[in-house]
Amino acid sequence: MSENVKINRGLKGIYFERSGVSHIDGAKGELLYRGYSINDLARKSTFEEVCYLLIHGELPTASELATFDAALKEGRTLPNAVFDIIAACKDGHPMDVLRTAVSALAALDPDSQETGEDAFLRNGLRLTAQVPMIIAAHEAIRNGRDPVPADPDLSHAANWLWMLKGQKPSDGAARLADVDFILHAEHGANASAFAARVTVGTEANLHGAIVTALSTLAGPAHGGAAEDVMKMVHEIGKPENAAAYVKAKRAAKEAVTGFGHRVYRAEDPRARHMREGVRMLGEEMGAPEWYEILQGVVEAMKPYARHGLNVNVDFYSGVIYQLHGIPMDLYVPIFAIGRMPGWIVQCLEQQRGNILIRPLTLYNGPEQRAYLAMDER
Amino acid sequence: MSENVKINRGLKGIYFERSGVSHIDGAKGELLYRGYSINDLARKSTFEEVCYLLIHGELPTASELATFDAALKEGRTLPNAVFDIIAACKDGHPMDVLRTAVSALAALDPDSQETGEDAFLRNGLRLTAQVPMIIAAHEAIRNGRDPVPADPDLSHAANWLWMLKGQKPSDGAARLADVDFILHAEHGANASAFAARVTVGTEANLHGAIVTALSTLAGPAHGGAAEDVMKMVHEIGKPENAAAYVKAKRAAKEAVTGFGHRVYRAEDPRARHMREGVRMLGEEMGAPEWYEILQGVVEAMKPYARHGLNVNVDFYSGVIYQLHGIPMDLYVPIFAIGRMPGWIVQCLEQQRGNILIRPLTLYNGPEQRAYLAMDER
Repeated sequence: MSENVKINRGLKGIYFERSGVSHIDGAKGELLYRGYSINDLARKSTFEEVCYLLIHGELPTASELATFDAALKEGRTLPNAVFDIIAACKDGHPMDVLRTAVSALAALDPDSQETGEDAFLRNGLRLTAQVPMIIAAHEAIRNGRDPVPADPDLSHAANWLWMLKGQKPSDGAARLADVDFILHAEHGANASAFAARVTVGTEANLHGAIVTALSTLAGPAHGGAAEDVMKMVHEIGKPENAAAYVKAKRAAKEAVTGFGHRVYRAEDPRARHMREGVRMLGEEMGAPEWYEILQGVVEAMKPYARHGLNVNVDFYSGVIYQLHGIPMDLYVPIFAIGRMPGWIVQCLEQQRGNILIRPLTLYNGPEQRAYLAMDER
Repeated sequence: MSENVKINRGLKGIYFERSGVSHIDGAKGELLYRGYSINDLARKSTFEEVCYLLIHGELPTASELATFDAALKEGRTLPNAVFDIIAACKDGHPMDVLRTAVSALAALDPDSQETGEDAFLRNGLRLTAQVPMIIAAHEAIRNGRDPVPADPDLSHAANWLWMLKGQKPSDGAARLADVDFILHAEHGANASAFAARVTVGTEANLHGAIVTALSTLAGPAHGGAAEDVMKMVHEIGKPENAAAYVKAKRAAKEAVTGFGHRVYRAEDPRARHMREGVRMLGEEMGAPEWYEILQGVVEAMKPYARHGLNVNVDFYSGVIYQLHGIPMDLYVPIFAIGRMPGWIVQCLEQQRGNILIRPLTLYNGPEQRAYLAMDER
């Protein structure tokens, strides 16, 4: 129990593994998936292609992508028991309902018990397809509607909006959801991916690891920022109030939501790809003021950029969801839809040359003492 | 991306936090809960008292224990929806069903959404009472029986056996289950407790953290050893086969299940308290041969004790469950009943002065490369 032992709180700066999936250069504000810049992927790729890239390491050929996409679409099915379970807990928080349904899928699907590379790939693809179905079905059921069946003619992102809203999204809206998922697809050993790796480290199956990831993403310090930004936007109310809001926050030494990131010192490279989309969707929906409020906050925050307080990815997401009329308690579940491939590929990496992840705590409790009988206490 | 960075695989030897809950001295084979030796607690205490000790730091007075016990008994209730959910996935693995039900409790119980010290205490006590109810209800439902209601006159351990089997256990059997729970109640930053801490690190609630712990315990490298020992005992079949079994395993350089532990080099101090119980329960149940097989294996393994291959806690648990006629797929859920207070107190510790737990991976993927259009691949 030497006091010279170093305590690495939060495991900050500790490397626990090598990973070939994504590279974050926080100082430069760069994010690569398998060597490809997030800027290229956000502009030129699709979520399906990015899933393939993350999981298999290379961009797919046309025929590889067609096979992958067909498997993903084949996964768009849920056992009837899952709808019953969603209905039984429909008044709960959507993250709790999503996690309960994914956990139930493990109990309902014998293939979930398999481990190994192929089983993780199969189950990962199926869960990627099922997660948006669960969220959309819950939203329908809690509003007294029948769940909308998946449409095999639609992409992952367009089908998500279709199942959620019961109407086909515009091309622009579908593309924006696609880009949102691409930007959220993977981000290194963040808390949810790391927790999933700890679960896989005990040789647990993929469903268990995804349940762990969902529990961990649900914490407001991880997945809650988009919701916080939207609350801030509502509090500000009008574009002309933004500067005064920021000034008051800074004077009170309080953080302005949507700025700064544990890893990025420069601007979060994902943010810029949402900005233009928010502007366009706002015009399409006849509600340009949300974008203007956000830009008012950005302007007012400019003097603090040299302290690393740049806009992060969560800053624009919430407004996009708001413009779609999506309730705030679905923001974190939407994050989960996008993050599925990242979780899956990190679980795949962990499983190759697997090892139990078990750090230590340094004991600072009482020294050994004699047990006291009840009447001696 | 310096190659001089140290990779701490499995986070072995890395301290991430201080903890005042339990102290493990692997070299001496000692385990303390809050300063009290596991040997004293296994001989003199009860599971309820150990729960209080772990959570509050001191042994309770008679009136403190009475209040605590009353709260624990008050928690012995489940919403009807949980029984429906268990029924909907009754053919799944009991760990998956348990995890699904705990996750559903979060969706069904608004108090689960609260965080902070008091909320963790309240929810922790309720979940400690509910976990054995869920397991027993699932066992009843999958066998076409009605769940047995909890009996407020029985202790936590005796009530568990009552709900599971529908008959009152003998005093000896109840005490053995009590000791089993005491021995499994807490064990430092093992993978499940650590994963639960990662979940709490994002400011998630306790239900989410317990779901994470259950997912992680379900991995065979963490919670699966008692089941493996029982499979070995069945394979050996008769006491006189034990020596030959061990000899063949050692010759093939294969591990003998139930020996050795990542932390203990000396004998796991928890094992000896199960040994005598197995012998007695075997006689009570008219099946002394299981104990004799185990002791045959212990005798045959004696030459390897100097390599740290001593008997561990999992060695005896499985046979106890077998003597009760408990199916093997309930062994890990029973481990979870015992471990509840350990998970809860570690989540409480994590929440005080909380910090995001986010280590790093060192990137070893491709260097930055230009995006290729589909027809260039």
